[in-house]
Amino acid sequence: MSEQRRILNKQTMGIADGLPLQASEGGIEELRQDIQRLMDMEAIKQLKHRYFRCVDTFNMEEMKTVLHKDVKIRFKGGNYEWNLDDRDQYIANMSYAFTKKSIGQHNGFHPEIQMLSDHEATGIWYLHDNMWIMNHKLKTHGTALYWDRYVKENGQWFIAETAYERLYELNDPITDTLNLSTHYLGTHGADPQ
Amino acid sequence: MSEQRRILNKQTMGIADGLPLQASEGGIEELRQDIQRLMDMEAIKQLKHRYFRCVDTFNMEEMKTVLHKDVKIRFKGGNYEWNLDDRDQYIANMSYAFTKKSIGQHNGFHPEIQMLSDHEATGIWYLHDNMWIMNHKLKTHGTALYWDRYVKENGQWFIAETAYERLYELNDPITDTLNLSTHYLGTHGADPQ
Amino acid sequence: MSEQRRILNKQTMGIADGLPLQASEGGIEELRQDIQRLMDMEAIKQLKHRYFRCVDTFNMEEMKTVLHKDVKIRFKGGNYEWNLDDRDQYIANMSYAFTKKSIGQHNGFHPEIQMLSDHEATGIWYLHDNMWIMNHKLKTHGTALYWDRYVKENGQWFIAETAYERLYELNDPITDTLNLSTHYLGTHGADPQ
Repeated sequence: MSEQRRILNKQTMGIADGLPLQASEGGIEELRQDIQRLMDMEAIKQLKHRYFRCVDTFNMEEMKTVLHKDVKIRFKGGNYEWNLDDRDQYIANMSYAFTKKSIGQHNGFHPEIQMLSDHEATGIWYLHDNMWIMNHKLKTHGTALYWDRYVKENGQWFIAETAYERLYELNDPITDTLNLSTHYLGTHGADPQ
Repeated sequence: MSEQRRILNKQTMGIADGLPLQASEGGIEELRQDIQRLMDMEAIKQLKHRYFRCVDTFNMEEMKTVLHKDVKIRFKGGNYEWNLDDRDQYIANMSYAFTKKSIGQHNGFHPEIQMLSDHEATGIWYLHDNMWIMNHKLKTHGTALYWDRYVKENGQWFIAETAYERLYELNDPITDTLNLSTHYLGTHGADPQ
Repeated sequence: MSEQRRILNKQTMGIADGLPLQASEGGIEELRQDIQRLMDMEAIKQLKHRYFRCVDTFNMEEMKTVLHKDVKIRFKGGNYEWNLDDRDQYIANMSYAFTKKSIGQHNGFHPEIQMLSDHEATGIWYLHDNMWIMNHKLKTHGTALYWDRYVKENGQWFIAETAYERLYELNDPITDTLNLSTHYLGTHGADPQ
């Protein structure tokens, strides 16, 4: 490889400092806002956790409650790129990747959530994934940094923008039959094309 | 495999919506309850984190402070099943699995904690595990979804029910000697039977 | 191996119980302190999350805002040991390990944060790491328990002490060329010596 990769830090990801993790000096109304801010941070983490659960169980019904309908997606892998501008496109793409012949493992760690206001926030996450595409005899695995924007509409948080770039990606041929003793997507994945 | 797997979502796991992540509109007593709820969510996450630490260090002494004495366990792997109804049974089972010839890695991600009241809560987690049983020349690894029920008694949170089903499980033979440079359970695991 | 490993539990790691996760029975000033405590726990988790992001992107500029300048480091691997007593030593060591020929993956799970006061805290974490040193044809991977001490100075939290010991460590030769499709440190790692 002779690739040149751009630097990945808060500046290049467009992540600015959010509201400080500092309790207000005000009265009961200000403390109520502080409590709400902590609850919103918890809600945003659970939103992203639901995202990963829905990905690997190919639960596109619940996924509709996670992604904003105008979600903007920019995923840049080593061998692929997803540039999508709405939820329906995302769900269509997922049905090509998460078939009965796939095994998906997508885990997100290390949340750095920044509250910008009572209805807007950003987050950085660290992805580790293993993806076996058995009908193409390929295992792709690696890590990436995610940077997201979240919005609250009608009392619910949604992922409005989500982007990642890889730290590394390995693409290994699958040479033997996998010793699978159980496989959820084998029943519940999409039918392969 | 020609297995048929049941669907795994909040409904089939029996996970209902908990108390909303919405600050009370009331006065100081209501805000105190909101703060306590946030503290309880943190305490429950730490409870499960202690669980995983105690598993992989085979620390059954501290484990007794994590599991309710009447804990109900339903773990459904590809090649095994644990159906246990108290803590002592669990600890007995652990001493068969976590021996000086085992290496255990059990990590739980993506907590979705729902508070049902000030003394009851549920949680969904995403497990990734690697388990080498060196004396049987077998490595089992995979992922699973956990769904748990937690109770608070005398000011302490306990795991009262815990269940999981796999997303995938692979069972690979160990063909070579492992290049182990250090191995905690080699000293502190149970004696193999 | 005929190693003997010392036991790893809260006592041997020197982790004492922190302030209880129990809302104060007092008035508005006491609740403000409770809220600040929850915010501090969030800030400490984000601090450690930034640490792992900075490690694997070899971002030593931002790392300077994470580690206390007198940070005390005690990392005990299977084949290596880091005993360092300041941040500059740490950064010098990192530039030997995180070169253009390395791939680093360091993930920290299961935080158990204990607040000792409004400016001091401890934390236990569970590390999983994969480290490929391609120019030495070696992949080191395993898990460890971390125990840390954090201090708040001028409104900012820093890692003041950090130690780990392994649960297991495997050292595997790299026998084939890695099927890398992208590699961030290949551009942004240090130059190998």
